Amino acid sequence: MASKYPVILGHEAAGVVESVGEGVTIVKPGDKVIPLFLPQCRKCSTCLSPEGNLCILSDVTGRGVLGDGSTRFRCRGQPVYHFMGISTFSEFTVVGESAVAPIQAAAPPEKVCLIGCGFSTGYGAAVKTGKVTPGSTCIVFGLGGVGLAVIMGCKAAGAARIIGVDINKDKFAKAMAVGATECLSPLDSQQPVSEVLSERTGGGADFTFEVVGRLDTMVDALASCHMNYGCSVMVGAPPSTQKLSFDPMMLLTGRTWKGCVFGGWKSQDDVPKLVTDFMAKKFDLDTLITHILPFEKIQEGFELLTSGQSIRTVLTF
Amino acid sequence: MASKYPVILGHEAAGVVESVGEGVTIVKPGDKVIPLFLPQCRKCSTCLSPEGNLCILSDVTGRGVLGDGSTRFRCRGQPVYHFMGISTFSEFTVVGESAVAPIQAAAPPEKVCLIGCGFSTGYGAAVKTGKVTPGSTCIVFGLGGVGLAVIMGCKAAGAARIIGVDINKDKFAKAMAVGATECLSPLDSQQPVSEVLSERTGGGADFTFEVVGRLDTMVDALASCHMNYGCSVMVGAPPSTQKLSFDPMMLLTGRTWKGCVFGGWKSQDDVPKLVTDFMAKKFDLDTLITHILPFEKIQEGFELLTSGQSIRTVLTF
Repeated sequence: MASKYPVILGHEAAGVVESVGEGVTIVKPGDKVIPLFLPQCRKCSTCLSPEGNLCILSDVTGRGVLGDGSTRFRCRGQPVYHFMGISTFSEFTVVGESAVAPIQAAAPPEKVCLIGCGFSTGYGAAVKTGKVTPGSTCIVFGLGGVGLAVIMGCKAAGAARIIGVDINKDKFAKAMAVGATECLSPLDSQQPVSEVLSERTGGGADFTFEVVGRLDTMVDALASCHMNYGCSVMVGAPPSTQKLSFDPMMLLTGRTWKGCVFGGWKSQDDVPKLVTDFMAKKFDLDTLITHILPFEKIQEGFELLTSGQSIRTVLTF
Repeated sequence: MASKYPVILGHEAAGVVESVGEGVTIVKPGDKVIPLFLPQCRKCSTCLSPEGNLCILSDVTGRGVLGDGSTRFRCRGQPVYHFMGISTFSEFTVVGESAVAPIQAAAPPEKVCLIGCGFSTGYGAAVKTGKVTPGSTCIVFGLGGVGLAVIMGCKAAGAARIIGVDINKDKFAKAMAVGATECLSPLDSQQPVSEVLSERTGGGADFTFEVVGRLDTMVDALASCHMNYGCSVMVGAPPSTQKLSFDPMMLLTGRTWKGCVFGGWKSQDDVPKLVTDFMAKKFDLDTLITHILPFEKIQEGFELLTSGQSIRTVLTF
């Protein structure tokens, strides 16, 4: 994601409202909230569409300012920019009214913060964008934190078979723990992985999910769903400016190929509901949280991430 | 479509059952029928899937034989092959039981024959595959016979705006007659057609349809639907062995890209219903039929087709 510098990063968090500006009605001081990197203005064409969620106020181009064009951070008199409208690597931040969702007071912030992005992105890709059906066969390419959330979504939707795919077999145990029924590594076969999966599933899965962000796995995921009634969902962000090349006959025979941002959820409407579902134990977030660190150790958190040791490291103040 | 030679071509027809083989129960001699180039065996995984229609018995690879592996045509003692299991350029043909749908006796064969392929392919792309919604905006690329049937489907589904796109403006009058609310030629603007259409539709259409079969118009159609909640349906057959190249961010933002064969209809189930809908005047086929010729003049029919003078030429015996 592009960004204007200097910037305060961070886009997945939970917090408490310290104060509100004039006219704000959706939250009041003391409310527990999740900031929304994908806002919901309720006025633009996507907010008004029943299926839309990429609100026009989203800062997808990295302008680094709030909806009114201003930045609210300063350092030694100079402006510091916002990241995706929420800048959550900070004890205090300023967000627009459309970029915050009030959640129930009892929700544990160090867990439900994952609903602010990673969990919801994967879970929604399965239950909302893919609309996984009971008894179906699903394949998930990429078993990082978002991929695990996709598996949880497939399981919640009643999938009968969930096949996890990753070149790192260390990921298999956790995938099985959250709902995968089997796992495989493409490196274990000379055959293209889509052929292996097509054979294993008797002609292709009902649903496949690409949660890696590579062009080749995007095509593998498309090829691995059934040629006629299969649906493949792109969740991983592709490398920018690179074109993907594929045989369009793969679609003409009947496949569906789609993508989503934030799992297709309407953020302000759906985040509080997801928190309610979590509190009702409809899904688990603990499995996704491998480390909890005080905010001062943020650099250590990045090291855990880049070295592949952590799924999610939660920072606390 | 590949084919084994010598072959009897033809895949869009209506006729009357002359005789049936042992154990055949779905039709009896004297029944009016539409042969099904896409059969429905009711046993394979696609037939059993609620959304599937590409039956495993379909002769998509051009084997040129019936489901039992035999050819039923001979010429001077030599085998002549079947085309897509139905070979309808013939006074008599032999088809499998899964490749025929009985239709009501009152249906006019010289009209409902179009339900055997072209009409249903376009109409179904809109109402069944795209699932066009009431009040939506639709764009149809390519205003040939199938494109016109897509427009009819969009209209039947209650679309508020239907924009026809073709480089041949002679096609506009008929498109408007069957339901387009406006038409444009990409040659009338220096701007890419997807930009022109995005501006005209306030950010992209709800549904777009590619009914040309060109790689560039497939990408144009994808780009012309809304980046977040738009759906683009591929109807035209792409050139074989050519790869299509596109920016996958177009999907990640939320678009849906899909294709269909025979409009997504389950042939034996849905063809009789489409005939019933036609008899109830839910759609019109006359507009699509520009010429009717006796079978002996089939060569003249091909000339009308290749010269662009006809939409559909119906051959009669």
